[in-house]
Amino acid sequence: MERVLIKETINYIGKKIRVCGWVNIRRDHGKIVFLDLRDRSGIIQTVVSDPELAKGVQEESAVEIEGEVKARPEKMVNPDIETGKIELSAESIKILSQAESLPFDIKDLKVTLPTLLDNRPLTLRNSQVKAIFKIEEEVLYSFRRTLKNLDFTEFHAPTIVPANAEGGAEVFHVDYYEGDAYLAQSPQLYKQIMVGGFERVFTIAHVYRAEPSVTTRHLSEYTSLDAEMGFIDSWTDLMDTCEAIIRNMFSDIKKNCQKELKTLNVSLPELGQKIPRIKMREAQQIIFERTEKDNRKEPDLDPEDEKEICKFSKEKYGSDLIFVTHYPTKKRPFYTYQDPEDESYTLSFDLICRGLEIVTGGQRIHQYKKLLENIKKWGNKPEDFSFYLQAFKYGMPPEGGFAFGLERVVKQILELENLREASAFPRDMERIDQRLSLLRSKETKKK
Amino acid sequence: MERVLIKETINYIGKKIRVCGWVNIRRDHGKIVFLDLRDRSGIIQTVVSDPELAKGVQEESAVEIEGEVKARPEKMVNPDIETGKIELSAESIKILSQAESLPFDIKDLKVTLPTLLDNRPLTLRNSQVKAIFKIEEEVLYSFRRTLKNLDFTEFHAPTIVPANAEGGAEVFHVDYYEGDAYLAQSPQLYKQIMVGGFERVFTIAHVYRAEPSVTTRHLSEYTSLDAEMGFIDSWTDLMDTCEAIIRNMFSDIKKNCQKELKTLNVSLPELGQKIPRIKMREAQQIIFERTEKDNRKEPDLDPEDEKEICKFSKEKYGSDLIFVTHYPTKKRPFYTYQDPEDESYTLSFDLICRGLEIVTGGQRIHQYKKLLENIKKWGNKPEDFSFYLQAFKYGMPPEGGFAFGLERVVKQILELENLREASAFPRDMERIDQRLSLLRSKETKKK
Repeated sequence: MERVLIKETINYIGKKIRVCGWVNIRRDHGKIVFLDLRDRSGIIQTVVSDPELAKGVQEESAVEIEGEVKARPEKMVNPDIETGKIELSAESIKILSQAESLPFDIKDLKVTLPTLLDNRPLTLRNSQVKAIFKIEEEVLYSFRRTLKNLDFTEFHAPTIVPANAEGGAEVFHVDYYEGDAYLAQSPQLYKQIMVGGFERVFTIAHVYRAEPSVTTRHLSEYTSLDAEMGFIDSWTDLMDTCEAIIRNMFSDIKKNCQKELKTLNVSLPELGQKIPRIKMREAQQIIFERTEKDNRKEPDLDPEDEKEICKFSKEKYGSDLIFVTHYPTKKRPFYTYQDPEDESYTLSFDLICRGLEIVTGGQRIHQYKKLLENIKKWGNKPEDFSFYLQAFKYGMPPEGGFAFGLERVVKQILELENLREASAFPRDMERIDQRLSLLRSKETKKK
Repeated sequence: MERVLIKETINYIGKKIRVCGWVNIRRDHGKIVFLDLRDRSGIIQTVVSDPELAKGVQEESAVEIEGEVKARPEKMVNPDIETGKIELSAESIKILSQAESLPFDIKDLKVTLPTLLDNRPLTLRNSQVKAIFKIEEEVLYSFRRTLKNLDFTEFHAPTIVPANAEGGAEVFHVDYYEGDAYLAQSPQLYKQIMVGGFERVFTIAHVYRAEPSVTTRHLSEYTSLDAEMGFIDSWTDLMDTCEAIIRNMFSDIKKNCQKELKTLNVSLPELGQKIPRIKMREAQQIIFERTEKDNRKEPDLDPEDEKEICKFSKEKYGSDLIFVTHYPTKKRPFYTYQDPEDESYTLSFDLICRGLEIVTGGQRIHQYKKLLENIKKWGNKPEDFSFYLQAFKYGMPPEGGFAFGLERVVKQILELENLREASAFPRDMERIDQRLSLLRSKETKKK
């Protein structure tokens, strides 16, 4: 008999079917056992009139049940689930794989974050956890869809690199045969190179930062949605494209993830008529006037500033998001285009959502000589960038791009407390899958 | 004036427009200069009647041209390009970025593979090279489309891992803070874990092999299209899904990449009515009968065997592809399901296309105790897999999956000589972007 997905069972009243899934809840009521069965499509109540059939069936076991679909009496209808008007009268139950007893309740998850993550293979069966990753998937699809419609080509950037453009010490070293290599901090150089061939490109890349501390906002390995476009008329084209991506993303999530939004009980951020755009120095002035905190000489916004400027944006423009532009040249990488009106600032932007940066971008230097000059000025060796520089030696149009942090987007739109909740298998200073301290204690036990 | 894409110019006869792109070819005919302009959408011939306008315009420079679109006289029509019936009469030319003189002809590329790759930022402007990556992009889209339609959830697997399941020494080591980590040889363990939550999952992952030699068929970093599905009725479900992916892939490429196939002058492999499926031992017997080469006791097919069995498949079944199944248990990883009829063989398969393996897959052990036993038998420590094992401790249905090597798929369907041609930025023992020997000689110069 062909397997029937649970969401389809409502079309089989009076018929005998086979369903497969996990035992979500087992309830023993004297001579009757109720098994709520869960598969990827939904949940159905199964009635087992012969308790022998359900003997030894533990919650979370994978089972196969054959039986007849019956309409429930009016007063027994459960409006909370899609199959609430029916139930399955079990005739046979086959245990495909028995579950051991659970270490904690995974339906009503009340565990600390470390426990949640240490037990991810189990906790990802929770409906709220699954909803997070279904929405994350939609973010990916929506990003690709918008850019494909705008004629961008998708490509794959390598993650093993000979040198990093972003600078700083937060780089992972790889033993590469007899020599050295590093894990890419971003696909930046490769997406710029690809502009020379395809004009508009994007890539969904894993990027790596050897963050020396544990915060709620950083991961050692994360997913970057990177786009780059040539022949721009102005650097504001980049923010326009960014805003189009965000608007489509939010409407796609609303359209395709209704069930998940309900499960998580969240509302998406407000976008207003147009996402406001203000210079970093203006933002600092506004924050000063609102809070009397004087960060007007700082070269960047701090986390508190980012929260405050979003509050301002919401109050004044009805938008939970705001573009902050014109970051100082000194704080940006060597390839960032300087503002012709004041070269101590750049044609760069961050998009801040509900108090956290989720996108960073800007125009890039496309002139070979200027780029070469900056590489030196930033303390790098031109030899390390000779491959990249080829792209500019032979005619590169004015261009720019941006990168969305996938997990940050999901964290902010779902108002998660910690970025790790938006990563199925987060890595940080203290964790690879499980806490390193747990791994190390196992190591010790072995000895 | 809004930029007009070159493929749209045919709709602007008699109108003044602005186009942007690269100078594909410059031809000086006395007082007239012809500039063929190339953008992401096509090529157009530009006529410059005032040579002063084109002064100093080098091939491959990025330019912006304003002018009037004119119909060409009948006898001047060029049937080879989409814009062959028109030309642009240039009124102004702005050099956005001047190209230095080219080291070799990039229109008619006749360079060795090392030169092709050392100069990738330049050579990727060649139309045949671009066609390879447009087809690669279509392979990605088609894979996702088929699986999404089959209700698979896309996720991201981490690439920094605490241990590797595939065994062997071909693993890259990463300095991970104060400890050790490795680059993933596959997303295998993570996709299996995800089955516990989502039943059907896939991921497009970078995977790493520290291949100790340079061959035409291996890369140190490649792209793996990995899928895994739970509640299978039989391991043959996996080959059925694989075949559906391949059939859609070929028809999507035929539909969406006509131009590219023409540029590359290739025909896709034949699929026949159904891709044949034979056991490895049968394949060896067939090869022995055809060639008198006796590899019947070998635990695997060698490269020559893979070529021969595809020849057989083409002759007998009209298919350039063939599934070879039932590889010996000893040659497969610990998680591979053994054939209940003969436990020295596994329910595994390779899909071989035109003489090279492009997919590998099989059913996995879903029983916790059996898996634990095998981990030990294969010489691994269960402690290293405790995270993974959680997924099986709490009810894992019968499941299996497979992985397509993206670059191998592209190499085989386009009949490229070397896998590196299908990777924009290939990495191997001797290369990261450029040949390491070149990088090292720069290093020496610096000292």
